[in-house]
Amino acid sequence: MRQYPRALGRLINEFNKLPGIGEKLAQRVSFHILSLSDKEAENLANSILEAKQSIKYCSVCGNLTEKDPCDICTDDSRRQDVICVVESPKDVVAMERVKEFDGLYHVLHGAISPMQGVGPDDINLKSLIIRLQGSSVQELIIATNPTIEGEATAMYIAKLIKPSGIKVTRIANGIPIGGDLEYADEVTLLKALEGRREI
Amino acid sequence: MRQYPRALGRLINEFNKLPGIGEKLAQRVSFHILSLSDKEAENLANSILEAKQSIKYCSVCGNLTEKDPCDICTDDSRRQDVICVVESPKDVVAMERVKEFDGLYHVLHGAISPMQGVGPDDINLKSLIIRLQGSSVQELIIATNPTIEGEATAMYIAKLIKPSGIKVTRIANGIPIGGDLEYADEVTLLKALEGRREI
Repeated sequence: MRQYPRALGRLINEFNKLPGIGEKLAQRVSFHILSLSDKEAENLANSILEAKQSIKYCSVCGNLTEKDPCDICTDDSRRQDVICVVESPKDVVAMERVKEFDGLYHVLHGAISPMQGVGPDDINLKSLIIRLQGSSVQELIIATNPTIEGEATAMYIAKLIKPSGIKVTRIANGIPIGGDLEYADEVTLLKALEGRREI
Repeated sequence: MRQYPRALGRLINEFNKLPGIGEKLAQRVSFHILSLSDKEAENLANSILEAKQSIKYCSVCGNLTEKDPCDICTDDSRRQDVICVVESPKDVVAMERVKEFDGLYHVLHGAISPMQGVGPDDINLKSLIIRLQGSSVQELIIATNPTIEGEATAMYIAKLIKPSGIKVTRIANGIPIGGDLEYADEVTLLKALEGRREI
């Protein structure tokens, strides 16, 4: 059986390795790349190399950044007394999109998961403890995901930090806006009920 | 609003431009690329540049190839008296997968579509006419897609070639194997009925 030319096969194969890109999509993308101008194809290739080269983790908060410490950590206009703890850099972007929180962040790069062998030492937690020592931080908002791992991580951090007198809070669970009570699962509904507030 | 670091934003943006890759998938792929080793990221970037540089169109059949003429056109063990006309290089791969056809190909790179302003001069058709002149080709199998454009292209080519005495055939339409009569559309069923053969 004759297949694609070797270089095209290689391109399809490389794209097929990426998450969420199956063989059909890898083919489609590869054919599209062949139809691009030389300049456009170079832009794509260079963006991969450039991102890989220039993006590092912030040594303070663990977020992705091109300069260390990152823009958020060095921004004096942000509140320095509250840190929001999230699982991944994507969560920082999600929080920033809300335009409400103007404190600092700490990115864990994961969550504690005994099932998958991820313990407290495997996530970016030690640097948080060091960061809090002698700092002016008054509140730690734990915004890990409402999954088993995220909850376990939140509990662990709360237990660890509370003795130091810093207020530890957890973001609320409940029915999402635009959601439907009828289709809410029991746990979410229970959490929504538990978290009810006087109106 | 703070966004991703510039180089990461650029990477996401470049992937988002590709067909079938929306913003969420572009993000997911970009984060995955950051987690790759330097070597792996280079492999991906180089495969793009290499494919773009080395893959050309065969000057005889129009298929994608790294050397000109392509492997199929220069393969003497294949039948030289039958040419299968397809719309795209992907169709050549599909046909080769069947392992039944061992003639030559001609890739049109499109189909005639007056609605989209694609005329006979906009597809790789002129080179087919030149190729047939004084050749030993006995049969032209038209394997364009069974769409309005593919059918129009088939009709156009048939009309153009038939006077020269070359046999022009069209691949069959019908119920696909494993398909279900109940869910077949009327046109497919009509074609299947028209194309019935004695058993």
